[in-house]
Amino acid sequence: MARKKPIRDKDTSPASGGLTYADAGVSIDAGDAFAASIGSLMRRTHGPRVLSNDGGFAGLLRLDFNEKLFARNYRDPVLVACTDGVGTKLQLGTQMGKYDTLGIDLVAMCVNDLVVEGAEPLLFLDYLAVPRVDQDMLHALVKGVAEGCRQSGCALLGGETAEMPGVYPTGEFDMAGFSVGVVELKRKTNPLRVRPGDVVLGLASSGVHSNGFSLVRAVIKKARLKLDKVYPTLDPERSLGEVLLTPTRLYAASIVKLLRSYKVKQIVSAMAHITGGGLAGNLERSLPEDVEAVLNAGAWEPPAIFRFLAERGGVSDEEMRRVFNMGIGYCLVVRPTFADAVEAKLTKAGETVYRLGEIKSARGQGGVRLKGV
Amino acid sequence: MARKKPIRDKDTSPASGGLTYADAGVSIDAGDAFAASIGSLMRRTHGPRVLSNDGGFAGLLRLDFNEKLFARNYRDPVLVACTDGVGTKLQLGTQMGKYDTLGIDLVAMCVNDLVVEGAEPLLFLDYLAVPRVDQDMLHALVKGVAEGCRQSGCALLGGETAEMPGVYPTGEFDMAGFSVGVVELKRKTNPLRVRPGDVVLGLASSGVHSNGFSLVRAVIKKARLKLDKVYPTLDPERSLGEVLLTPTRLYAASIVKLLRSYKVKQIVSAMAHITGGGLAGNLERSLPEDVEAVLNAGAWEPPAIFRFLAERGGVSDEEMRRVFNMGIGYCLVVRPTFADAVEAKLTKAGETVYRLGEIKSARGQGGVRLKGV
Repeated sequence: MARKKPIRDKDTSPASGGLTYADAGVSIDAGDAFAASIGSLMRRTHGPRVLSNDGGFAGLLRLDFNEKLFARNYRDPVLVACTDGVGTKLQLGTQMGKYDTLGIDLVAMCVNDLVVEGAEPLLFLDYLAVPRVDQDMLHALVKGVAEGCRQSGCALLGGETAEMPGVYPTGEFDMAGFSVGVVELKRKTNPLRVRPGDVVLGLASSGVHSNGFSLVRAVIKKARLKLDKVYPTLDPERSLGEVLLTPTRLYAASIVKLLRSYKVKQIVSAMAHITGGGLAGNLERSLPEDVEAVLNAGAWEPPAIFRFLAERGGVSDEEMRRVFNMGIGYCLVVRPTFADAVEAKLTKAGETVYRLGEIKSARGQGGVRLKGV
Repeated sequence: MARKKPIRDKDTSPASGGLTYADAGVSIDAGDAFAASIGSLMRRTHGPRVLSNDGGFAGLLRLDFNEKLFARNYRDPVLVACTDGVGTKLQLGTQMGKYDTLGIDLVAMCVNDLVVEGAEPLLFLDYLAVPRVDQDMLHALVKGVAEGCRQSGCALLGGETAEMPGVYPTGEFDMAGFSVGVVELKRKTNPLRVRPGDVVLGLASSGVHSNGFSLVRAVIKKARLKLDKVYPTLDPERSLGEVLLTPTRLYAASIVKLLRSYKVKQIVSAMAHITGGGLAGNLERSLPEDVEAVLNAGAWEPPAIFRFLAERGGVSDEEMRRVFNMGIGYCLVVRPTFADAVEAKLTKAGETVYRLGEIKSARGQGGVRLKGV
């Protein structure tokens, strides 16, 4: 669909006489103008698979369009779907008056999960909920969503903007994202493929990403930090707020490209998107019970923002590692003989790759063991 | 995916010492207990197409699973996707302390849009955002979502529950739904198929559905109505609140069954889900510009709730028809020689069907003309 026109609480223009929707607190023209302004943002994300459906009730994407780049014909296509939000990082955007990168965070939280399953992202939809239509703000939000979709190769197929004055106080808002991808059943990642000897690679995060912002805000409050202030120990040029708002890194394009380059061999045993729960909590989800991942904490240097937050907030290292990604945003478990090749391909695709450790037979409970902390 | 375990603002358990996530206002055990409690609700919606992916990063649904009932092999499958919310009907649920049917509304707002395109609903995901995890409330919400999915034949494949104390004031919350369906390209509905002589059928709504609740609440406030009071002119047994909370009717099962019964012939020219914008506003979206739909307002009797709201709130008839469905929740435009057969099939499927009027060549602007108002 194009984003449906009557976007305000799903209602439409008031007629004259008696109690009307305008009386009930709903703006009209602002909503329509916004709907028009984002059409071009959405169309920029539409490849040849997207079917035009202006004014329609839903968005349409052809699954088997014969694109030259990856002529495909799924034998047993599996749809992969997930939903996520950005959490209280949104409130930081409000405090900074900066909305144009939160949409990238939203797309990243979803598509980074999709590609973990080996899927190619296909489509994305957003749900924005605001107390009142503010065109500039909404346009900036959708612009970020469209940019995230473009970078991830998925079509922004539709969305909903709900104006709910009573639910959201002035200044507050929320956004949810929804993404669907497809993977050939046989090429889906599978924890059971993980074997002792496999190498664990980590991809650098761009910072805090979109998790742990309630704790971030608690640290800011406790240590009386200022979002618009430059703290030289953190960053010589950017303010604390700018550092924190750095958008979540999108790994989808790099991962999809990597997986396509190994069409037959199953080089990648498992992957993990590092979100709430940290490196150990998320990598563990991708491992079978009879192995453990033994990682070397010295393999990478956490970005300055994490030390800054820990010191200013008096947050323990253990708590930091449970809440934040600490510099590793995505993990791959790969066959040892191909680790160098995978590292080279991902580096070429623009990722910073760390060799974190390896998979060993579990002596005890399995899971993830971080050495050197 | 199973709903991911760390559901609170995507963060996880606090470690000891220093500032922790608990200090930042995040409940822990409540979230985990909720995640466990809804697993069985979700599994009840899973047919053989759903692949188990406990603890995974995304939900998985096999597109081409060879179910006996409708052995299919799409030649050119088109994914149909949409997102919607329930709007301020949620606040009525809060005021009534009744949350178990709002999930049905959420599913209906999405899947009723999907089937308009001729699609079969496949999967659904929900996004729930709350100020604080209240297990009973969340369980009731997801129970409704699962029930809506079950009735619509789609799998509840995952969801996200975001706890954001600062964004949502106590008592407020929001939910968004995302649904994906599939349709064979050639069988997609297409406004260009609509021809003069086609018959317009309307399916009865169950009441206000999920649109116009800001106006409903304005009427309640203006006329000082009480949600827990029984108004005999409205309903002799149910309170105003109960009448208003009646869940949105799910048309998906009836429509999918109907479309499957006409596998070759294209009997249904177009369809429309009647939401904000009313009968005229939504039916018009499904018509080409060179025709008009001439409908007879006497063809059906609007349910008592609409007259009640109009009278108590002093809302004009015109405004009522622009905001509410007025008793018709879904429309089909069908070939005249098959109108009786379609009416019979839909009646047998449990729908109340009204013959609203017919399609004529447009004399002026096209659109929808309602006679007898």
